[in-house]
Amino acid sequence: MYDRLKGFRDFYPGEMSARREVIDTVETAAAQYGFREIGTPYLERTQMYVDKSGEEIVEELYAFEDKGGREVTLTPELTPTVARMVVAKQQALSKPIKWVSTRPFWRYEQVQQGRFREFYQTNADIFGSSEPEADAEILAFAADALTDLGLTADDFEFRVSHRDILGGLLRSFDADVHVTDAIRAVDKSEKVEREEYLGLLSDAGLTYDQASEFADLLERGDLDEIADFGGENVEAAVENLRNVLAAAEDFGAGEYCEVSLTTARGLDYYTGVVFECFDSTGDVSRATFGGGRYDDLIESFGGQPTPAVGVGIGNATLQLLCQRAGVWPEEELTTDYYVLTVGDTRSVASRIARDLREAGNVVEVDVSDRSFGAQMSYADSVNASTVVIVGERDLENGEVTVKDMESGEQTTAPVDDFPGGRDEPTSDDFE
Amino acid sequence: MYDRLKGFRDFYPGEMSARREVIDTVETAAAQYGFREIGTPYLERTQMYVDKSGEEIVEELYAFEDKGGREVTLTPELTPTVARMVVAKQQALSKPIKWVSTRPFWRYEQVQQGRFREFYQTNADIFGSSEPEADAEILAFAADALTDLGLTADDFEFRVSHRDILGGLLRSFDADVHVTDAIRAVDKSEKVEREEYLGLLSDAGLTYDQASEFADLLERGDLDEIADFGGENVEAAVENLRNVLAAAEDFGAGEYCEVSLTTARGLDYYTGVVFECFDSTGDVSRATFGGGRYDDLIESFGGQPTPAVGVGIGNATLQLLCQRAGVWPEEELTTDYYVLTVGDTRSVASRIARDLREAGNVVEVDVSDRSFGAQMSYADSVNASTVVIVGERDLENGEVTVKDMESGEQTTAPVDDFPGGRDEPTSDDFE
Repeated sequence: MYDRLKGFRDFYPGEMSARREVIDTVETAAAQYGFREIGTPYLERTQMYVDKSGEEIVEELYAFEDKGGREVTLTPELTPTVARMVVAKQQALSKPIKWVSTRPFWRYEQVQQGRFREFYQTNADIFGSSEPEADAEILAFAADALTDLGLTADDFEFRVSHRDILGGLLRSFDADVHVTDAIRAVDKSEKVEREEYLGLLSDAGLTYDQASEFADLLERGDLDEIADFGGENVEAAVENLRNVLAAAEDFGAGEYCEVSLTTARGLDYYTGVVFECFDSTGDVSRATFGGGRYDDLIESFGGQPTPAVGVGIGNATLQLLCQRAGVWPEEELTTDYYVLTVGDTRSVASRIARDLREAGNVVEVDVSDRSFGAQMSYADSVNASTVVIVGERDLENGEVTVKDMESGEQTTAPVDDFPGGRDEPTSDDFE
Repeated sequence: MYDRLKGFRDFYPGEMSARREVIDTVETAAAQYGFREIGTPYLERTQMYVDKSGEEIVEELYAFEDKGGREVTLTPELTPTVARMVVAKQQALSKPIKWVSTRPFWRYEQVQQGRFREFYQTNADIFGSSEPEADAEILAFAADALTDLGLTADDFEFRVSHRDILGGLLRSFDADVHVTDAIRAVDKSEKVEREEYLGLLSDAGLTYDQASEFADLLERGDLDEIADFGGENVEAAVENLRNVLAAAEDFGAGEYCEVSLTTARGLDYYTGVVFECFDSTGDVSRATFGGGRYDDLIESFGGQPTPAVGVGIGNATLQLLCQRAGVWPEEELTTDYYVLTVGDTRSVASRIARDLREAGNVVEVDVSDRSFGAQMSYADSVNASTVVIVGERDLENGEVTVKDMESGEQTTAPVDDFPGGRDEPTSDDFE
């Protein structure tokens, strides 16, 4: 007996049907905004990740040398791949480019609740617009996906921030501050004690007093005060943030958004608005997902300068939120019909099964030469709504028996009139 | 600029939409037979493949050592993984177990037409029934999948054979023949000259005369003659093959099946009926896909003896067949509505877009602050059926303009009555 790898999961049909329903809901929401599905390779050259994130990233990648001597990596995220794809066909693609896909990614990390080594994400990105409407459309799609799942404004909130507000403020304190390190400190601010946070800001180049004032400014989150304080660039960033929120309001996502300048996102490549989705009740402490603007990435991949904004919805953390809110789908099978054979009736039963499938139903038949009781118990195990019993004796009278599995009621129907053009015949149709 | 790995593919939206339509059709056919979707890991322990196929298999695998020192492999096929999953929950799962999934697999092979290093398959398997109805249901599902794609009996044929007929006949010539090698020779018989074929059979332990007689018997394919010739085991296998074909006839797949004893399938683990799907015209020379019975695998994985039968439909070869037959879907985008803004009308345009999405439509809006002309040309590029023009002047009169993009006809509609409860409003609705 072989064991599964740690951090990897087998999804059996019950759990899978719930996951599929959720993924379909999210993808349908994206499709309705005109995000187009793409298909992407699961292996890329390791160099792409090293260039983007530094040599130390390799430690958390599934990186190896292939049989042809290439250094390759199981993709840990989608963004570099879509950036590569945009660059490869930049001239041919009409803008804005709006792409979506759902697939697994891999990181060699510690396994914990909602975090696996193989994990699924739905990524949606817009390339080619720097307008606030693009950021807002990402927020609106994400909000639609969540509300389509049955979540409400009581369940989740989008904490929206702006990298240029953080960067501009930091530089207004000290032009030589290490902005990337300081933003990483902000990203950690809610998880560590204030003194540790201020220490991290000091490590990035602020004095203790500056760090303290900066932290207070973010905490208060008064955009007018911040715009006044931070100078021209910060003012422009505040205006951009406000424009995004106004567009999000028009797009129907306003009620889910709140300004939260202590939200920073850990990744280095973000350039403008960033946001994270959180459980409003706080029961699920980790961010459900996040996203933001990354206007410099395409150019750094060798393409024409191309603004970009996107979101990556992690299925595992989304599942935690849905389960907390009680909207995770039932993890069970559904079956419309089980066509049960008694004696040598396979030919008639098969005709009925084919007709029912033709009408779009899920229909199972006996493939194990089993008894009436064994077939009935199997029909039960797959939650068949209706069992059609095709017995030798009934057939002599030109009849089949139609049994409603919930009520237990059954009636006979003329075999020549079953399903008889009905798309979803029930025992009621033949009472 | 980074390059994609050889043998891996990027699927841009047009091609992806065609692929998605085909995969959905195949998966829907499977669902209607009660095959249940599962989700499976993309990495497994390398040992699983070595035990099943021998040490030499590693040469064609993406096998490597992970950061924890485990020997792991990017899954080259699904069967070992589903066998592992069946064994892990064997007691809890009600039989027959009927699973389906579509996902990529990886082999480090020479890249050629229809063969990639990263390739997609839809796998459907039934565990727990040794009855001919199980084999027949696999054939019937596969036939439905193909006919649902628009293929007909003129386009494809299932060449059906039986491992025990081949094995039994071989042993009836010589009890010490190396059956596996001889069956591999049969698998190659249509690709090599007769003398080479007979040479391979001789290498497997037959005399030249035996090899020749065996080849002739298979070629004639007369099941009565073969049953007479081969003794008890062959007779039973012939009966099993005939029972499978009779069940396939009842299940609606009879017209696609023909006995072809020179069809053998290369893989070692098959035990009963095997089959391959071929292009009837011969234009696509490689098998579209294949499958068969593998009753010994679960036990060899440490489980209770559990009969099994399945099929793996390769998306790339299926694409070749569909393209040859002219049923490959159009590789293009579809969009129901583009809601175009002229001037400061975002708020109204957004309300209209939301209402149209609510009714299930694909709706795009401007996210790039573009001119009328640029928006219209984008709407064209995404094949919008209808453009709703929300202009400042029209709005002063309480109107929007609805333009049919195919006919070019346009008319005005009251903004308060658009879409006004209509699920798919067109310009005709407001003439």
